[in-house]
Amino acid sequence: MSRADLSSSACTVARAVAAVGDEWTLLILREMFLGSRRFDDFLRQTGMSSHLLSQRLKKLVALGVVRRSVYSDRPLRHEYILTEMGKDLWPIIVAMKQWGDRWLLDGVPPVQIVHKSCECVTHPQMTCSECGEPMQARDARARLTRGFSAVRGGTADRA
Amino acid sequence: MSRADLSSSACTVARAVAAVGDEWTLLILREMFLGSRRFDDFLRQTGMSSHLLSQRLKKLVALGVVRRSVYSDRPLRHEYILTEMGKDLWPIIVAMKQWGDRWLLDGVPPVQIVHKSCECVTHPQMTCSECGEPMQARDARARLTRGFSAVRGGTADRA
Repeated sequence: MSRADLSSSACTVARAVAAVGDEWTLLILREMFLGSRRFDDFLRQTGMSSHLLSQRLKKLVALGVVRRSVYSDRPLRHEYILTEMGKDLWPIIVAMKQWGDRWLLDGVPPVQIVHKSCECVTHPQMTCSECGEPMQARDARARLTRGFSAVRGGTADRA
Repeated sequence: MSRADLSSSACTVARAVAAVGDEWTLLILREMFLGSRRFDDFLRQTGMSSHLLSQRLKKLVALGVVRRSVYSDRPLRHEYILTEMGKDLWPIIVAMKQWGDRWLLDGVPPVQIVHKSCECVTHPQMTCSECGEPMQARDARARLTRGFSAVRGGTADRA
């Protein structure tokens, strides 16, 4: 299956993976959530090549995740800014940070997240939209639509 | 920067990205959260080559995200099961699903998540661990440790 196939998959995880599920794209997004907007800052902070960076930024713009904005006319220079669609990727990056902090680190996390409204250092967690309780894998059951279940050739309810 | 450099980065997002931030690994994890455990099921449901699948599973086992378990002696056959470290990746996959459902889909999401304890179809969301309010990018400020800030060459507080 190619990336093009993934992006048209019935599965929206596969589509999201095709859109942003590669390491360089995820690092660019991390940078954007840390406030970086400029090509040279992405280069320096991610250590990727300018060719790869340019390619990934083009893709993010084409997807609608990032928009380009002129910040200098002479010479012509652009910034890269997250759109609403892009800002909505925040839970993915935060979930990766939480997991990395917990499982891949001894010591103090390099970045703390402060919740602006309560001013606390927070460890954002997934909670149920209906009852508000924190959720983990064991609390969830996947229910597949009949169509998607038929595509997969399986049953419609998974533990 | 190579993947090896990423995995030893001070940034835990970069470490998480190095561990699981590639499209095939994310698809294998999706499959595991849907209940798949066997090599042939991963093959069929992801469409990846057996070479790539074998490589990714080896890496996940080495990382401690997945463990192998014998389910048949003759012939010798293994299942692949998420460890606690692996189950803890659930928020990443769920965040990708939520984003894909919202931004890359017209119509009904192919998979619904049922919260076992309240029995509701849920749309898990990131909430503040301290005050319990839902959080989005705009609600968060990143606070960098002095050490990490020095590595990056920037200021310690980012909007």
